[in-house]
Amino acid sequence: MKKLIFAICFLLTTTIFSQDSDEVQIKSIYDTALSNGKAYDWLNHISNQIGGRLSGSIQAQQAVDYTKKELEGLGLDKVWLQPVMVPKWTRGAPEFAYFESKPGVTTNIPICALGGSVRTPLGGLKANVVEVKSIDDLAILGKQRLEGRIVFFNRPMEATNINTFSSYSGCVDQRYAGAKEAAKYGAVGVIVRSMNLRLDDLPHTGAMSYGDTPVNERIPAAAISTNGADLLSVSLTLNPDINFYFKQSCQQYDDVQSYNVIGEITGSKYPNEIMVVGGHLDSWDLGDGSHDDGAGSVQSMDVLRLLKETGYKPKRTIRVVLFMNEENGLRGGSKYAEIAKNKKENHVFALESDSGGFSPRGFSFDCTEENFNKVQEWKPLFEPYLIHMFVKGFAGADIGPLKDSQMVLAGLRPDSQRYFDHHHAANDTFEHVNKRELELGAATMASLVYLFDKYGVIKTTKIIKG
Amino acid sequence: MKKLIFAICFLLTTTIFSQDSDEVQIKSIYDTALSNGKAYDWLNHISNQIGGRLSGSIQAQQAVDYTKKELEGLGLDKVWLQPVMVPKWTRGAPEFAYFESKPGVTTNIPICALGGSVRTPLGGLKANVVEVKSIDDLAILGKQRLEGRIVFFNRPMEATNINTFSSYSGCVDQRYAGAKEAAKYGAVGVIVRSMNLRLDDLPHTGAMSYGDTPVNERIPAAAISTNGADLLSVSLTLNPDINFYFKQSCQQYDDVQSYNVIGEITGSKYPNEIMVVGGHLDSWDLGDGSHDDGAGSVQSMDVLRLLKETGYKPKRTIRVVLFMNEENGLRGGSKYAEIAKNKKENHVFALESDSGGFSPRGFSFDCTEENFNKVQEWKPLFEPYLIHMFVKGFAGADIGPLKDSQMVLAGLRPDSQRYFDHHHAANDTFEHVNKRELELGAATMASLVYLFDKYGVIKTTKIIKG
Repeated sequence: MKKLIFAICFLLTTTIFSQDSDEVQIKSIYDTALSNGKAYDWLNHISNQIGGRLSGSIQAQQAVDYTKKELEGLGLDKVWLQPVMVPKWTRGAPEFAYFESKPGVTTNIPICALGGSVRTPLGGLKANVVEVKSIDDLAILGKQRLEGRIVFFNRPMEATNINTFSSYSGCVDQRYAGAKEAAKYGAVGVIVRSMNLRLDDLPHTGAMSYGDTPVNERIPAAAISTNGADLLSVSLTLNPDINFYFKQSCQQYDDVQSYNVIGEITGSKYPNEIMVVGGHLDSWDLGDGSHDDGAGSVQSMDVLRLLKETGYKPKRTIRVVLFMNEENGLRGGSKYAEIAKNKKENHVFALESDSGGFSPRGFSFDCTEENFNKVQEWKPLFEPYLIHMFVKGFAGADIGPLKDSQMVLAGLRPDSQRYFDHHHAANDTFEHVNKRELELGAATMASLVYLFDKYGVIKTTKIIKG
Repeated sequence: MKKLIFAICFLLTTTIFSQDSDEVQIKSIYDTALSNGKAYDWLNHISNQIGGRLSGSIQAQQAVDYTKKELEGLGLDKVWLQPVMVPKWTRGAPEFAYFESKPGVTTNIPICALGGSVRTPLGGLKANVVEVKSIDDLAILGKQRLEGRIVFFNRPMEATNINTFSSYSGCVDQRYAGAKEAAKYGAVGVIVRSMNLRLDDLPHTGAMSYGDTPVNERIPAAAISTNGADLLSVSLTLNPDINFYFKQSCQQYDDVQSYNVIGEITGSKYPNEIMVVGGHLDSWDLGDGSHDDGAGSVQSMDVLRLLKETGYKPKRTIRVVLFMNEENGLRGGSKYAEIAKNKKENHVFALESDSGGFSPRGFSFDCTEENFNKVQEWKPLFEPYLIHMFVKGFAGADIGPLKDSQMVLAGLRPDSQRYFDHHHAANDTFEHVNKRELELGAATMASLVYLFDKYGVIKTTKIIKG
């Protein structure tokens, strides 16, 4: 009996001590991030000294060089570049568009080419415009109504979703597949209402795909601003016979050489168990990509620095990966997973930050029930930092290819209300990132990495087999 | 036994139905706020058509007239103005300051007078400057070191607090009481580091008080920007013998007539039980007061509109109060409570929004344990809207004077990370308020008002007596 009581006491003491030490370590991480963070300075450089970092651009290469150098300065155990071939698409001259309600009566509309689109003819493209609300509408209208026309996809993002990413998911098919689908009915071009919950004058670019559409059947695709979309839509109710004109000179080149930027702290006890934390270094070209995803990149870099600064020595290998080409190809994420597989590396955990540098609210997890339950037990550790959202769901695009049944994939979930005001648009710029919010995100990520490093990832099959 | 089972079933059904109907009503409130909110339009008018609304100014009166008219347009049961005399202080010509490290070598410093300060002499005030970190430092330095000098209060806001209001509380004594205390040691002026967690070039004004300092012993007080404070501090370490010059022409006038703006939906069942929701209509003069407290004012107005729009008929009287003069006198809040007491009105609940129009995170409650426990039971109803913070604490300045042992006082708690970037400064402007965040705040407030109206406030003494 005495032995049992002793055992219980020992267990309690260990647990309490352990929870205590976790509280201390996590407070140290947050304090360091808020009083001595590096993320904001790095972002300042990436955003203001380099700027938009579209894959294959000079700026993307500058960002590779800069972040490699900065990681080297942190005294990590290893820093290297991982070569990856990436698509190169350029926007060319600023796009231009108007609609013509009567011959000669024109109204300019803010427009930008979608990433991956073909150019218009040299003199631009002018055709009758037809508004639809969905890809399904195309079949209803049919070839007769669409042939020779420009299709205007105008289904807005749903305002009532609290998670704005749900509203994005509910609309983005128009942007991604609109041109491919409209071409089947003989449409000559596609314009899409920007994926933006605000009414403003900024067009938002983003990836589109022609799928297996033969090259000579590909039609140009562009986004127009939400105000422009509303104006065009109202004008079409007054006069259904409106011509739309747009001109863009974007171009797809051969793939070019680029790199994932990687740094690691080698694990002291389980060096072969790898934990990844990352964001993507490339961005669209209209803004400087501060929220998407300069923020996630510098937060990921700061995770390793915060662990070092607070004197924590990881048992497992903690690796920061700045992925290249998330926006228009996901080549970096795919390459990283491919090489990890070829080398038979044992990745146990991956955390991505690619939802903006706003106030962190929690994480979404793509993992087994056991690991998800484990995370729930850590909730009280995060409460003092107002981190309250621990949900199941999509973790991140770049870490997705790593997925296996054993790994824990996690995605930082910041407050999402402002994200689509800036996403892929000219106002995704440094001044819209708040220093403290960015730092709180980095600290929240570092705290999760710390906990998974310290307590490990539960391997389900082993437990079942054992 | 059958009867018991029936009773239990009935009870269960009622509870489930009731929770269900609460979910439906609250969803309806959020959906309406996000898809058909009025708060943002109202704020646009108040901020951009009217502007800063310092008590006693023409703009404050314009805001009274505008909001009264808008409330009248909502079809409330009653809308009225409640007269209140308010202080009138004006800034006068833009302030100017520099420090002089050697005779003739000057560096300009962004400065603004603190609200309530006296002016400098016509030609400005120039004196040797002494940096201190706290009011306690004054006694350590003593009259010998402070007489004839300008005292520079430079204790920064603490970066590591997650709740930035704690950092504000930890510093604001320098601004509020610095001049009063420094005058005791013969100081001739006071400059204070702005209450701002960011490093930038904007001075932040705010209330100060001379207490019972005789009029002829009052010394001018001003705030300098955080960058200015750092620059001056570094310069003082290089050369402790620096003169500081500032000039301000602010002035205090006699009190003038102003108003609280009040509207109500009279309760259908308990019209004498009054629930207040409010913000303050006045603001400082440097920006347009969008976050402080245009946001809280229009959110409060929208609470009543949202209840009407969603078809909810309150059992109790719901009253919106737009308080005048929170910033430099609290006359509106005091007057409202005084009249309520004189009329023996039975206020059971008051909710204030005065912490900015950022993403709502929850509420702080100043109430009995019973009511606080009741609120905890409602948490699941708020979870879908990511409202997670239900804490005890300060509810709000304007509703404070209403307080009695029975009432529930509540304060909306938005994300606080960005608040002090804008608070009382020239960048507290409309473009820094996000429409959705503002609307989510209004919906969160309306949902709490709905729940307290439906289920009532628990009266403790009655329960004890009964």
